[in-house]
Amino acid sequence: MTTDMILYDLAGADGRLRWSPFCWRAKLALAHKGVSVVTIPWHYFQKEVIAASAQEGLPRVPVLVDESRWISDSWRIALYLEERWADRAPLFGGAGTRDHTLFVKHWVQDELHPPLLRITLLDMYERLHPLDKLYFRQSRERRFGMTLEEFSADKPKHIATLRKALEPVRKTLSEQPYLGGENPLFADYLVASALLWGANACEHELLDETDSVTRWRNLLIARYEHAVANA
Amino acid sequence: MTTDMILYDLAGADGRLRWSPFCWRAKLALAHKGVSVVTIPWHYFQKEVIAASAQEGLPRVPVLVDESRWISDSWRIALYLEERWADRAPLFGGAGTRDHTLFVKHWVQDELHPPLLRITLLDMYERLHPLDKLYFRQSRERRFGMTLEEFSADKPKHIATLRKALEPVRKTLSEQPYLGGENPLFADYLVASALLWGANACEHELLDETDSVTRWRNLLIARYEHAVANA
Repeated sequence: MTTDMILYDLAGADGRLRWSPFCWRAKLALAHKGVSVVTIPWHYFQKEVIAASAQEGLPRVPVLVDESRWISDSWRIALYLEERWADRAPLFGGAGTRDHTLFVKHWVQDELHPPLLRITLLDMYERLHPLDKLYFRQSRERRFGMTLEEFSADKPKHIATLRKALEPVRKTLSEQPYLGGENPLFADYLVASALLWGANACEHELLDETDSVTRWRNLLIARYEHAVANA
Repeated sequence: MTTDMILYDLAGADGRLRWSPFCWRAKLALAHKGVSVVTIPWHYFQKEVIAASAQEGLPRVPVLVDESRWISDSWRIALYLEERWADRAPLFGGAGTRDHTLFVKHWVQDELHPPLLRITLLDMYERLHPLDKLYFRQSRERRFGMTLEEFSADKPKHIATLRKALEPVRKTLSEQPYLGGENPLFADYLVASALLWGANACEHELLDETDSVTRWRNLLIARYEHAVANA
């Protein structure tokens, strides 16, 4: 008998809303491998719950628990799943692709995450568990040197920045169905996870519905409907 | 007896300076495969010379001639070389990596080429063959809706944009020696070709010498010293 794995997943106040892009990467990677997982809503104030993951600094999610193994960091989780289920559809498809995917990861974090943070920060704050709010406001205001409200001003500008930053994805998708080629690979999930962050953290429509990126995102969501709905 | 291949390569007035990033991609790919090639300086006014490449619209370089085959477009040239010398070190290393490299190509063109164009346009103009100058000025001024001088103003700002745009490359290189992993692959040449454009088209130092991107670029240039020197 196999025990299902457990994934700690950042959640809003009601436990249902899930927006962490790093957790989305793990969930899409698990869905890609066809691995069933029990997803546990996690709040910032529950640091002790994931203390066994032995991270440097503050413990963060996602944290995957596979029997006695605790694995943190979405990239390490993807590498772990690739090795653990080496006989299933590859997430990377070889060392060369994995090394190229690392560039996509950094590109997503440098070009997509900053405008998404501007777009969603205040909305995330409003959706947080009451016990998370003070920590979140103080830590973010210290990091950004301004109030959440100031940081989140002018959403339309940041939405425009996000749409423009997606241009290399848009052009790639005009030549092949997925970043991974004929089928989605982890590079696709890196980008999709950023968009799922936006979709779950705020009400604004971030993409134009005629955008080929929207079509690709919707295809991916449909493919993993179960994992996405049951976030 | 094998006839060397021929590569038509955009050149400045004296025939020596070569800056086209698309031509650099082809030259680095040829060097990677260890294929010897005769590089022929080409100027914009010599469109008939490459007419046999049968391109849509105005003929452009690079154009590779392999006996009776004429191949244009740097991406198609790379795919051609990969297939023709399938037994030599791969440029992509499989379909998955090739499909990921397409994203890198679009990223380079969307994020690195625009600031490089701002930085180099006027310098390229000054270095062109006299017969190319009127065509170049008129076509570019029409395309950009301003004079070359206006388009090229404020170089320091565009150099800062370029350095910032390189951040995902910088972070990737902090984790592995090349974008391709342990060894350079075509993704590396896409980025290096953009930097070789800058280095050959203007006098400005585009990178900080302490930048890890500079170290990586210098390693690549040293690796292909023959190809780079003998542009």
